[in-house]
Amino acid sequence: MGGLFVAAERILMTFQVYDTTLRDGAQREGLSYTVADKLAVARLLDEFGVGFIEGGWPGAVPKDTEFFRRARAELDLRHAVLVAFGATRHAGRKVDDDPQVRSLLAAETPAVTLVAKADLRHVQRALRTSADENLAMVHDTVTYLVAQGRRVFVDGEHFFDGYRDDPGYTASVAQTALAAGAERFVLCDTNGGMLPSQVTAVIADLTARLGVAPGQLGIHTQDDTACAVANTIAAVEAGVRHVQGTANGYGERPGNADLFAVVANLQLKLGFPVVPEGCLEQMVRVSRGIAELATIAPDDHQAYVGAAAFAHKAGLHASAIKVDPLFYNHVDPQLVGNRMRILVTEMAGRASVELKSRELGLDLTDHPETLNRVTKRVKELEAEGWSFEAADASFELLVRSELPDAAPPRPFTLESYRILVEHREDGAVVSEATVKIRVRGERVIATAEGNGPVNALDEALRVGLAKHYPELRDFELADYKVGILAGSHGTGAVTRVLVETSDHTGRDWTTVGVHPNVVEASWDALVDALTYGLDRARG
Amino acid sequence: MGGLFVAAERILMTFQVYDTTLRDGAQREGLSYTVADKLAVARLLDEFGVGFIEGGWPGAVPKDTEFFRRARAELDLRHAVLVAFGATRHAGRKVDDDPQVRSLLAAETPAVTLVAKADLRHVQRALRTSADENLAMVHDTVTYLVAQGRRVFVDGEHFFDGYRDDPGYTASVAQTALAAGAERFVLCDTNGGMLPSQVTAVIADLTARLGVAPGQLGIHTQDDTACAVANTIAAVEAGVRHVQGTANGYGERPGNADLFAVVANLQLKLGFPVVPEGCLEQMVRVSRGIAELATIAPDDHQAYVGAAAFAHKAGLHASAIKVDPLFYNHVDPQLVGNRMRILVTEMAGRASVELKSRELGLDLTDHPETLNRVTKRVKELEAEGWSFEAADASFELLVRSELPDAAPPRPFTLESYRILVEHREDGAVVSEATVKIRVRGERVIATAEGNGPVNALDEALRVGLAKHYPELRDFELADYKVGILAGSHGTGAVTRVLVETSDHTGRDWTTVGVHPNVVEASWDALVDALTYGLDRARG
Repeated sequence: MGGLFVAAERILMTFQVYDTTLRDGAQREGLSYTVADKLAVARLLDEFGVGFIEGGWPGAVPKDTEFFRRARAELDLRHAVLVAFGATRHAGRKVDDDPQVRSLLAAETPAVTLVAKADLRHVQRALRTSADENLAMVHDTVTYLVAQGRRVFVDGEHFFDGYRDDPGYTASVAQTALAAGAERFVLCDTNGGMLPSQVTAVIADLTARLGVAPGQLGIHTQDDTACAVANTIAAVEAGVRHVQGTANGYGERPGNADLFAVVANLQLKLGFPVVPEGCLEQMVRVSRGIAELATIAPDDHQAYVGAAAFAHKAGLHASAIKVDPLFYNHVDPQLVGNRMRILVTEMAGRASVELKSRELGLDLTDHPETLNRVTKRVKELEAEGWSFEAADASFELLVRSELPDAAPPRPFTLESYRILVEHREDGAVVSEATVKIRVRGERVIATAEGNGPVNALDEALRVGLAKHYPELRDFELADYKVGILAGSHGTGAVTRVLVETSDHTGRDWTTVGVHPNVVEASWDALVDALTYGLDRARG
Repeated sequence: MGGLFVAAERILMTFQVYDTTLRDGAQREGLSYTVADKLAVARLLDEFGVGFIEGGWPGAVPKDTEFFRRARAELDLRHAVLVAFGATRHAGRKVDDDPQVRSLLAAETPAVTLVAKADLRHVQRALRTSADENLAMVHDTVTYLVAQGRRVFVDGEHFFDGYRDDPGYTASVAQTALAAGAERFVLCDTNGGMLPSQVTAVIADLTARLGVAPGQLGIHTQDDTACAVANTIAAVEAGVRHVQGTANGYGERPGNADLFAVVANLQLKLGFPVVPEGCLEQMVRVSRGIAELATIAPDDHQAYVGAAAFAHKAGLHASAIKVDPLFYNHVDPQLVGNRMRILVTEMAGRASVELKSRELGLDLTDHPETLNRVTKRVKELEAEGWSFEAADASFELLVRSELPDAAPPRPFTLESYRILVEHREDGAVVSEATVKIRVRGERVIATAEGNGPVNALDEALRVGLAKHYPELRDFELADYKVGILAGSHGTGAVTRVLVETSDHTGRDWTTVGVHPNVVEASWDALVDALTYGLDRARG
């Protein structure tokens, strides 16, 4: 651990990007990671270049104890320092006799973050101890862990509420932590009620009161006023050089500060090189990878990394964007690994369809009639509930079907299919599908089971096509989404299905189907997926 | 229209909350309103107490022309002034000869907002006209509309980018608009790249340069740096008294400033009474109503209005929250029409289960054994992928099944069910379900069709139960959600189904089912829904 010790001076000059996705971020409603998920999230965060990864609370959460154990053997971090999170010693107990503190040491991380109550009301009513004992708890625990060779951070819980209520006491908690050897004292807006100008004012007041440099402080915000990112930026502008946040802003209630937006703002707007060279471009990939591990649908409208972050819809814009894309994007999307997208929608005219087609490699400039037909067809289908915004492959098939000799061959024709789902008397649930299709002149009947109706149908179709299309083996259904549509209710609704398929090279493509019956909607999306994939495999 | 004219002095003192959900907000990817939707959204916004509702672009968008026509007959707004949005006159054309400007008058709204290019580069490259002609277009159009009795706002498009590039020209656009009689000149961060401190600096520089009061300016931000709300607040702190935003932050790319967060911050954090008395409490209802009309799932993590905005998960917190809830909420949730929720999750211990049960009217204080059993059962089920966070009714059934004599009677027992989905040779798609059940000693076999497998199953079950439970007629499936779970892929995934059911009194309840087979997961949720609803109907 000695080799990880960094000279004090360098520490205070270094900008610290501190991630707490795996600890505070895991408080998000509905989120739960396995230990394997946590290791995978940590690897992604390291690829993004954060300086610190707070892995969890060893001792208090069994999964986290296990995480730190496995991390020692399995995690080989290039950029980040692993941090164990815990509390100051228990009131009235000796620090070296406190099992929770011992668990922190047992995690064997180079750094430890301690949560300390910074609001006297919480000290008295939730912790049920005295003002002085709380300070002693901070002093003793920091001193002890520093003596054991740990870098120590102290999170001042409810710092801002406490500072409003009793600035003297709250400041004394910060002073105690720093005097005992804490590397940074982190101002936590635990209840998330702050605005940027208030953060600025508090930091100025606190640093003047204590005579400390703002570089000795850190900032941890929550998004309850929708200002978490801005509050973090305000703290940095006030001199703070340690920012905490979580991937995609995951966290309790509205969430924490989104570390991606924080880092992108710091680096691209304020010129702080806070992540190593080459890391910023990993942002979209890391963001989506963590969303997948968290099994949370990515937020298309997330700043910088969302699929819609650089998407342009208005027909008005679309024609101007052709002139100069950077006039319509606040930064170059490639800097964060994102890309500009032109959306094909009912609000878009021929210009958008033309631009989108070109993006897919189909130039319609010399085919004005085709362009008109496609635009008309898109509008008709959208009136029925179709949407091609996310389904590039279905859109490409649509355009090519209108171009002379460009339509890919349909791999088969359907005669009929039938699906049976049974909950039997013994409790077993069975799904079975039969397809009757014609493949290259041959009539094929194929039956397969699946763990649900759509899976059974997919399997049966693959069985039926296997002889003529062996490359189907490489296609995997990567994602399957069902949406209920406009103005309809409950299970009687019109459904839209999006299917994402990938092949052995890692390429993926998305197709769409719409129908009142979810099975038929899925069928349409599956058939498009196979048609598109087979054509590409042979092209 | 004369009666709507407001004395200039009063206008400059009045705080203007200006909503553009129906115009700029409609640029959001995937969003599309019917005219009826737009009228309903306008009514909700009015109930929330906004001062201005920008309804769309008459003339340019046929749907918007129709909206303004119907609004005259059908919209009876209590608080808001309706605004038509359009552009300055076409380059090289006389203003009274411009059909687009005439369409604005034909909308017969008390106020008109004109978009004007405020970035010289856009003037030259996108509009393809000269610097002077652009200023003349602003001057002519504002003067003309004011002479026609309209209140006029001017949106300075790409204002901040323009100001960075050529502050002199951009300022002259603002000056021209105000000199011509515009009520406010609105600083638009069209590409969304600003940070709060930059907004503050630009407003100070602009007002000094022009010698105008910040009260003559408005602010319109986009969320591309995740700072739209903070940028708006920064402008208000700099003296701006006209804020633009959209419901739930809907808008192009990451979206616009969320008007709910803006208003709540202004009112609850900065003390500006920006909406009429009694309106702030409508916020959650209006937010969710508009989400429903937009057919966008509400964002549970949205500040102030999200279902998780005041939800507490950590077991650690849950016990302290019992002591004093307001120590853990940045504002009283009731002020915005929201409520505090305790989440039952794997991270929660007995305290959360106890608190949640009490919230549902089941006091477990005297049943420690039951409390232990329920906590254990919840943890087991959650390990399988169940989640009770959103499914209060299923959670209540679970608790009551562990309490002596409290379990509601199961309305039937299942022998088996069978579902058939066929895509026939003639192209027809048919779903049919048969259930074999035992109801009060009687064996019942019932078959029904539906427009999908789950709908058919729901219908067959209702047919089978109708004789014994006529009150089922009043139950309606209000929402049906399918989620794909953790670590699984494609159609072979484990699915979680949430079913929301409502009765004729408007009460609704949510139940959950989890199974690899989506049909069986739906079945579990449907059975819980009927059991819970029938018990309540008879209780």
